Amino acid sequence: MKPTDIKNLLEAVEKGELSATDALGRLKSLPFEDLGFAHVDHHRHLRCGFAEVIFCPGKTAQQICEIFERLLVSGTNVLATRAEPGVYKAILARFPRAQYNETARTITLVQEDPAKLIGQVVIVSAGTSDLPVAEEASETAQIMGSKVQTIYDVGVAGLHRLLGHSEQIQQANAVVVVAGMEGALPSVVGGLVAVPVIAVPTSIGYGASFGGVAPLLTMLNSCASGVTVVNIDNGFAGGYTAALINRLAVEGGPAK
Amino acid sequence: MKPTDIKNLLEAVEKGELSATDALGRLKSLPFEDLGFAHVDHHRHLRCGFAEVIFCPGKTAQQICEIFERLLVSGTNVLATRAEPGVYKAILARFPRAQYNETARTITLVQEDPAKLIGQVVIVSAGTSDLPVAEEASETAQIMGSKVQTIYDVGVAGLHRLLGHSEQIQQANAVVVVAGMEGALPSVVGGLVAVPVIAVPTSIGYGASFGGVAPLLTMLNSCASGVTVVNIDNGFAGGYTAALINRLAVEGGPAK
Amino acid sequence: MKPTDIKNLLEAVEKGELSATDALGRLKSLPFEDLGFAHVDHHRHLRCGFAEVIFCPGKTAQQICEIFERLLVSGTNVLATRAEPGVYKAILARFPRAQYNETARTITLVQEDPAKLIGQVVIVSAGTSDLPVAEEASETAQIMGSKVQTIYDVGVAGLHRLLGHSEQIQQANAVVVVAGMEGALPSVVGGLVAVPVIAVPTSIGYGASFGGVAPLLTMLNSCASGVTVVNIDNGFAGGYTAALINRLAVEGGPAK
Amino acid sequence: MKPTDIKNLLEAVEKGELSATDALGRLKSLPFEDLGFAHVDHHRHLRCGFAEVIFCPGKTAQQICEIFERLLVSGTNVLATRAEPGVYKAILARFPRAQYNETARTITLVQEDPAKLIGQVVIVSAGTSDLPVAEEASETAQIMGSKVQTIYDVGVAGLHRLLGHSEQIQQANAVVVVAGMEGALPSVVGGLVAVPVIAVPTSIGYGASFGGVAPLLTMLNSCASGVTVVNIDNGFAGGYTAALINRLAVEGGPAK
Amino acid sequence: MKPTDIKNLLEAVEKGELSATDALGRLKSLPFEDLGFAHVDHHRHLRCGFAEVIFCPGKTAQQICEIFERLLVSGTNVLATRAEPGVYKAILARFPRAQYNETARTITLVQEDPAKLIGQVVIVSAGTSDLPVAEEASETAQIMGSKVQTIYDVGVAGLHRLLGHSEQIQQANAVVVVAGMEGALPSVVGGLVAVPVIAVPTSIGYGASFGGVAPLLTMLNSCASGVTVVNIDNGFAGGYTAALINRLAVEGGPAK
Amino acid sequence: MKPTDIKNLLEAVEKGELSATDALGRLKSLPFEDLGFAHVDHHRHLRCGFAEVIFCPGKTAQQICEIFERLLVSGTNVLATRAEPGVYKAILARFPRAQYNETARTITLVQEDPAKLIGQVVIVSAGTSDLPVAEEASETAQIMGSKVQTIYDVGVAGLHRLLGHSEQIQQANAVVVVAGMEGALPSVVGGLVAVPVIAVPTSIGYGASFGGVAPLLTMLNSCASGVTVVNIDNGFAGGYTAALINRLAVEGGPAK
Amino acid sequence: MKPTDIKNLLEAVEKGELSATDALGRLKSLPFEDLGFAHVDHHRHLRCGFAEVIFCPGKTAQQICEIFERLLVSGTNVLATRAEPGVYKAILARFPRAQYNETARTITLVQEDPAKLIGQVVIVSAGTSDLPVAEEASETAQIMGSKVQTIYDVGVAGLHRLLGHSEQIQQANAVVVVAGMEGALPSVVGGLVAVPVIAVPTSIGYGASFGGVAPLLTMLNSCASGVTVVNIDNGFAGGYTAALINRLAVEGGPAK
Amino acid sequence: MKPTDIKNLLEAVEKGELSATDALGRLKSLPFEDLGFAHVDHHRHLRCGFAEVIFCPGKTAQQICEIFERLLVSGTNVLATRAEPGVYKAILARFPRAQYNETARTITLVQEDPAKLIGQVVIVSAGTSDLPVAEEASETAQIMGSKVQTIYDVGVAGLHRLLGHSEQIQQANAVVVVAGMEGALPSVVGGLVAVPVIAVPTSIGYGASFGGVAPLLTMLNSCASGVTVVNIDNGFAGGYTAALINRLAVEGGPAK
Repeated sequence: MKPTDIKNLLEAVEKGELSATDALGRLKSLPFEDLGFAHVDHHRHLRCGFAEVIFCPGKTAQQICEIFERLLVSGTNVLATRAEPGVYKAILARFPRAQYNETARTITLVQEDPAKLIGQVVIVSAGTSDLPVAEEASETAQIMGSKVQTIYDVGVAGLHRLLGHSEQIQQANAVVVVAGMEGALPSVVGGLVAVPVIAVPTSIGYGASFGGVAPLLTMLNSCASGVTVVNIDNGFAGGYTAALINRLAVEGGPAK
Repeated sequence: MKPTDIKNLLEAVEKGELSATDALGRLKSLPFEDLGFAHVDHHRHLRCGFAEVIFCPGKTAQQICEIFERLLVSGTNVLATRAEPGVYKAILARFPRAQYNETARTITLVQEDPAKLIGQVVIVSAGTSDLPVAEEASETAQIMGSKVQTIYDVGVAGLHRLLGHSEQIQQANAVVVVAGMEGALPSVVGGLVAVPVIAVPTSIGYGASFGGVAPLLTMLNSCASGVTVVNIDNGFAGGYTAALINRLAVEGGPAK
Repeated sequence: MKPTDIKNLLEAVEKGELSATDALGRLKSLPFEDLGFAHVDHHRHLRCGFAEVIFCPGKTAQQICEIFERLLVSGTNVLATRAEPGVYKAILARFPRAQYNETARTITLVQEDPAKLIGQVVIVSAGTSDLPVAEEASETAQIMGSKVQTIYDVGVAGLHRLLGHSEQIQQANAVVVVAGMEGALPSVVGGLVAVPVIAVPTSIGYGASFGGVAPLLTMLNSCASGVTVVNIDNGFAGGYTAALINRLAVEGGPAK
Repeated sequence: MKPTDIKNLLEAVEKGELSATDALGRLKSLPFEDLGFAHVDHHRHLRCGFAEVIFCPGKTAQQICEIFERLLVSGTNVLATRAEPGVYKAILARFPRAQYNETARTITLVQEDPAKLIGQVVIVSAGTSDLPVAEEASETAQIMGSKVQTIYDVGVAGLHRLLGHSEQIQQANAVVVVAGMEGALPSVVGGLVAVPVIAVPTSIGYGASFGGVAPLLTMLNSCASGVTVVNIDNGFAGGYTAALINRLAVEGGPAK
Repeated sequence: MKPTDIKNLLEAVEKGELSATDALGRLKSLPFEDLGFAHVDHHRHLRCGFAEVIFCPGKTAQQICEIFERLLVSGTNVLATRAEPGVYKAILARFPRAQYNETARTITLVQEDPAKLIGQVVIVSAGTSDLPVAEEASETAQIMGSKVQTIYDVGVAGLHRLLGHSEQIQQANAVVVVAGMEGALPSVVGGLVAVPVIAVPTSIGYGASFGGVAPLLTMLNSCASGVTVVNIDNGFAGGYTAALINRLAVEGGPAK
Repeated sequence: MKPTDIKNLLEAVEKGELSATDALGRLKSLPFEDLGFAHVDHHRHLRCGFAEVIFCPGKTAQQICEIFERLLVSGTNVLATRAEPGVYKAILARFPRAQYNETARTITLVQEDPAKLIGQVVIVSAGTSDLPVAEEASETAQIMGSKVQTIYDVGVAGLHRLLGHSEQIQQANAVVVVAGMEGALPSVVGGLVAVPVIAVPTSIGYGASFGGVAPLLTMLNSCASGVTVVNIDNGFAGGYTAALINRLAVEGGPAK
Repeated sequence: MKPTDIKNLLEAVEKGELSATDALGRLKSLPFEDLGFAHVDHHRHLRCGFAEVIFCPGKTAQQICEIFERLLVSGTNVLATRAEPGVYKAILARFPRAQYNETARTITLVQEDPAKLIGQVVIVSAGTSDLPVAEEASETAQIMGSKVQTIYDVGVAGLHRLLGHSEQIQQANAVVVVAGMEGALPSVVGGLVAVPVIAVPTSIGYGASFGGVAPLLTMLNSCASGVTVVNIDNGFAGGYTAALINRLAVEGGPAK
Repeated sequence: MKPTDIKNLLEAVEKGELSATDALGRLKSLPFEDLGFAHVDHHRHLRCGFAEVIFCPGKTAQQICEIFERLLVSGTNVLATRAEPGVYKAILARFPRAQYNETARTITLVQEDPAKLIGQVVIVSAGTSDLPVAEEASETAQIMGSKVQTIYDVGVAGLHRLLGHSEQIQQANAVVVVAGMEGALPSVVGGLVAVPVIAVPTSIGYGASFGGVAPLLTMLNSCASGVTVVNIDNGFAGGYTAALINRLAVEGGPAK
């Protein structure tokens, strides 16, 4: 249920096509659907600006398909993350328009064609091995309506590679920086820009990376201001927050 | 050195008042001052939109005073964080206009009077014990030019306290949520708004809070989208990032 | 050996049908059976109100079958947890009345038909991915004689889903709350009820969940009173304790 | 605001002494009071069965006094935990009936005289050094209306000390077990009783206790069923939950 | 090279059958053999009372066979731990007298027939799932010449099972206690005996056992005196140390 | 109550000087004394070979004095560990024969004069900074009747210092090795002797020692066989276990 | 692009064969190549003395082949680490001169034949199971031009094995010490030599090695001076740094 | 005992001024002096190229003075680290030529005047708060004979500050990089030089620095080759290793 649906509902009441009681009932019943194993939150688009996203691990292919369908029916774009190829196969069989990004492990189905993607989100990765996470961020930001540019494999051990792209980075409304190993890249990028940097640690590295704890701590302790951090390997959160900020920068927010 | 200074410099070159070589020299020499024990980064305002901030722990009162002076001379507002009362006393003796927020442990000296604070940043705290961190965020966001509203002691064990303020929260361009103990508040707030939530864990709590590790992990694992995290007790980082986003939402960013 | 068996034994002594010495001997010999690889604790029903439960990991199928049989012979209901399908197959071959809950990975065999399940235990889960743990709690509480209601996928990022069930939750004698990721749900539920909340962290989540450490710490640090915590993914412990409390609430305890 | 107050309010409406609109207003305004630095949650007694409790660390003596007063005015018993002697001195100056338990560091002020304490909560400690935590549990359970018995210094290295009290322990409706060092006591007690055991780890011990992590993990991994755990040194949480269970056992719960 | 070999060598010198220089050369060359990938330490039997033991993980079957052979040639009993079935197969093909204990994953080949095993080592396990570790301890203590008794599955949740064996335990010269989950058993056993207890934590348990960290910490923090600890799942170390103590108790040590 | 007291009691029964019922009563009443805040375990000498030891932290000076007195009255030697100078002052005022070892922080009072200390325990320390822990071990082993030799500051970075004492070390029945920093010393000592090595990690070191975690892990992972470990800084446990082994080596154990 | 290439370029300018502008362009364009998924850093040889090395995990075989080719074309020796056999197969198909060290999991292709390897690097391992890491160090040091000697399986539990090689070790310019389990070997080696010791912890060991954390901490806390540490299992870093030092010792550095 | 002393000793034997037996005796007796509480290792200069260094924490002022004297007597330069002002006062009273660096907390006494300091060690710090550690490194490297240059407060958030010194850094034979917070600086420096970088993490930072764990992990995971790491706040180890490498680069090593 998108804001425009709510508006239509209220106008129908205004025009006398719908009683206040019926409208209330519909609003009350709409927020979520109880599928037994899941409560699909149709209210989220209204509250938070984007529909519920399906996090696949721990759900059966059948459960994912059912939630996917409920979201489709509500009219929004659909995004499923951490989807194994087998899950995509099951989704594809029922929803032939669904797309799969193998590297990012995302399934997407675009229903509302964004006339044009807006603003600019830049996604930077420290190494080639960080691509799955960076691509998840990219897919997420795009389905939320952001233009995205990617700059990959520009880790701090060869600074000139990063500095060669600094102009490009400085044109973004928000920058997502994805890095494993020592995770120093967001601090350096944070020192180059005047917009928020969302740092995404990855689990790539030798033993004492501890599955991404090392870059996570690095990023939390960044000496550069304006750097905030999301969970290890959580490209989705990076792309989502960058898209929120990008939208605010282009369209403005509630407070002006 | 603020962007307008740079512009003046370049115009002087254009008008023939200054040779290109001299301009280059001045630019090259300006970015930082080497005090021996510190390199004051005057370039930061230019690159990142706000001058260098003084993090006091581990510095002597004399070192802090010297850096404070250098920043003052460059014309920007000055902010020092984690300042013990003794440090403030030393600063006050030399800079009588400096202000101290005892709860936040911040010293501020406003040189550029912002005609009017812009937008809206909301700072929410879970408990009364989290005030020092929340106040640090508030001082930071304000000195960077943001209007700030604070809502304190609205932890999730009494949801009605938070929900009673939901309208207020939904009018912000960015929300800073400060919480110790289990740190659940950002997830709940994140489910109520369509703008970024910057979560700041605090070290308040019983034993297994482990000095703030518990709320830190809670926030990193938030099931709400749009929540990013900064270091434990780092109210400065929360206020700084919120102010960046607030400015983007009011003034727009580089990419449009 | 259930309390009624003990009572019968003592009455037989009272009636002179059994000598005190013989009774003592039987009592002494009954408490446990030494199978070499295991000491089956038949005394537990008497002491703790429910028979020993078989924790399957690390035991061979044959060992599990043998312990299963000994418990059956003693007349109690039997519960085996964390049972792989292969184990169930072996059990089923020998005990055709054994039931398997594939999601919960529990094997149950009900011998004492509870005339009617008593009271009310409510089991709440934050996400669909938490179902295996929630179902283990449900199976456990039921075989111990409790009526159970389940409310799944009502995480705090969409509070209205939970609040829509608050009346139902407030009718329970004990609530089990199962949550992974940031594990904030028990704090919110704890703020809504006047009965104990048993919080069960799960290992579902992105990297910095650290296999359930994040929700575990969240729950231990809950700002809501009346929340206690069990081990990660230990649905059994959640269901067991809830059933104990439920029985006390319906039947009263030793102290009145 | 206690349940009976609500009932009186509703009866006043029923009798026509108060309009529905006015009643609603009063209910709406009552749940919390915003003191600026704190939102006092008067609703909690109604929802959870006991008024808000004041956790002192991080609050100034003046803030504590103000919250204390608000709670007193609402008519409930008041409990403040982790109160330093200086805080008690400030409280005592304004509320001469306030009591201080030096070992437990609790301040209590009983307004509603419980005709008679009900049921039985037993509090067991492993060592003499665990007394501050055990006493906090005891004070909490008593102010919530429970009869309390304490058995101190009965650690597992001298089992006969514990077994000598087993009859006493078996008469409780709920048992709180407080232990530092290796924290093995709750497992042994859990094997002796048919009621819930709330385990409270303490920070007492040699180096590798890690401030209570060792007993915390021990308790979470207890092989005895019916053992749940609260935060390190959190005697309050132990006493609170035990009192909840004790009340359910004596008075029954919502579901019967 | 066993002590008797050294003695023979020295007597040959005494009798003039061997020059001092030659003896020295032989002694110097004997201590270790360099196989390129391994230095076999033939000196260890002489220094420490038992030959080198082969820890299999990370070694190829071929490497293990070669080290096995070198040790056999030196005349001692041979023990290989953590041996996969495939390794045993390779060993068996070359050394048909080698024995395999599938539960313990040990390969043994007894060359020196101990006229009679001496003293008494008791090995106690908390659960059936701890058997692989307990059996490794048992195999090790036996090949070092100790009589061994095993008492399995006597965890603290059913104390009577343990107490029923207390007499047997009190007759040991050293007790090895193997326990996973909360690891409380060594503390209880330590309170019953006047000889050293070697505690062996196992990695058996639910999530917050953290692969054996929970019982490890429990054991290190034991409130019972005389309890020392070895590495997680290291049954070998437990059996080895118990056998050393047992030998001291029967044969006496260097200092009398 | 020491073993000989028990024997006297039983002989009194044998001789008809005491009825069986009276003897039973006395035995039953003796095991512990309940002081309210403590259960003094007089049974321990009987079960474990040495009386209860007073661990001072967390106990008031008055509580320590009272327990001290009860133990004195029972006739055994008394040992109090981790005693601050203030505690000793209080003890000395009431028991003038009490001795204080300032480095070890132990208070001792010898009542049973051991005709002659037996066997040999060697205590080795890696550095001078480890002395407090090493001295605690020494005091403990001596009050339990062992001869003790100490070798201090022989860390592995200067192996010749250790090897210069190897003969002395090889004459011990048990060796206690105390080390902070990297804690490598027990592995080297373990490779030199044929008796158990009890390793005691200390909290001495730079940052990544983590209060003794580094040497603790080093010791648990020792590649030398026969090394067991006790808690960080727990010299008492090291000395106690070494004394137990030393006694077994000189007097033999229960099983022969 | 190696230093000699740069020199040739500059000489071409000097000789008038190339304009300054063209030279600049070539230098500017050379530093890195953007392959989309990777920025190959051809500048590194110039800056750091050795070309970029390919870390294989997380890269597809096709990506590795493409980077491999780009490096080959630039004329340097190529090293790929952590290469699975399948990756080698793909490389071999395109570059038949590539070599594979199965134990080290390295692929190497030598293009610049070093007339003669220089100096001396010694690589010592504590156990046979540490060979994969030690061999990775060896391959790395050799491809960087160092002579290498290896001494394997000389752990501290049998010191004579190490001391038998001390002369050999003392002839090195740099020593790499590889050790798992307790990781004590670098401290002992550090006490024997006057050159830097690079300590490489490995993940070999029982449970409480925690995947190499135990030896890592041991090495960081080494009481021997001159010991520095690299990441767990990172033989590459060990060999690389040793080769740098070795080159400095033979050829001297920038400062003389 | 320095190498030249050894040489003199041997020449005396050669000339017949000293018998071989006497020389041997003197060599044997010299290596260490047993002060009871310490074994002073006079052999270290001979083996490792620099005399023993006094680590003050945990030693009494008197013990430090005594060790100081013994080292002085042996003729070497003396260095004591982590010395509190009180310790320096005690040293100064007895050795008036001793120097104190208040920031570094080092006491030094130079006996052998190095004709001229050699080579070049550069010490870089990320922040002003890291000075105590950087200065400890500087004092150490200088007393070992190295020329030292320091560059302070050039963290990665303002890269131009570092890059402005790159020429200076590239002239060093070894670089010590000291950094707290996120510790990213060594990776960036490592990408700029062709000599070893010794990274020293400091405990400066906000909460999730965990006393220096964050920069420690960052440095261990550095993506730049040639970076090795020492313990948290261990400036001594950094300066020591850099001086070793510097000497090798200037004077060459054993292998040529």
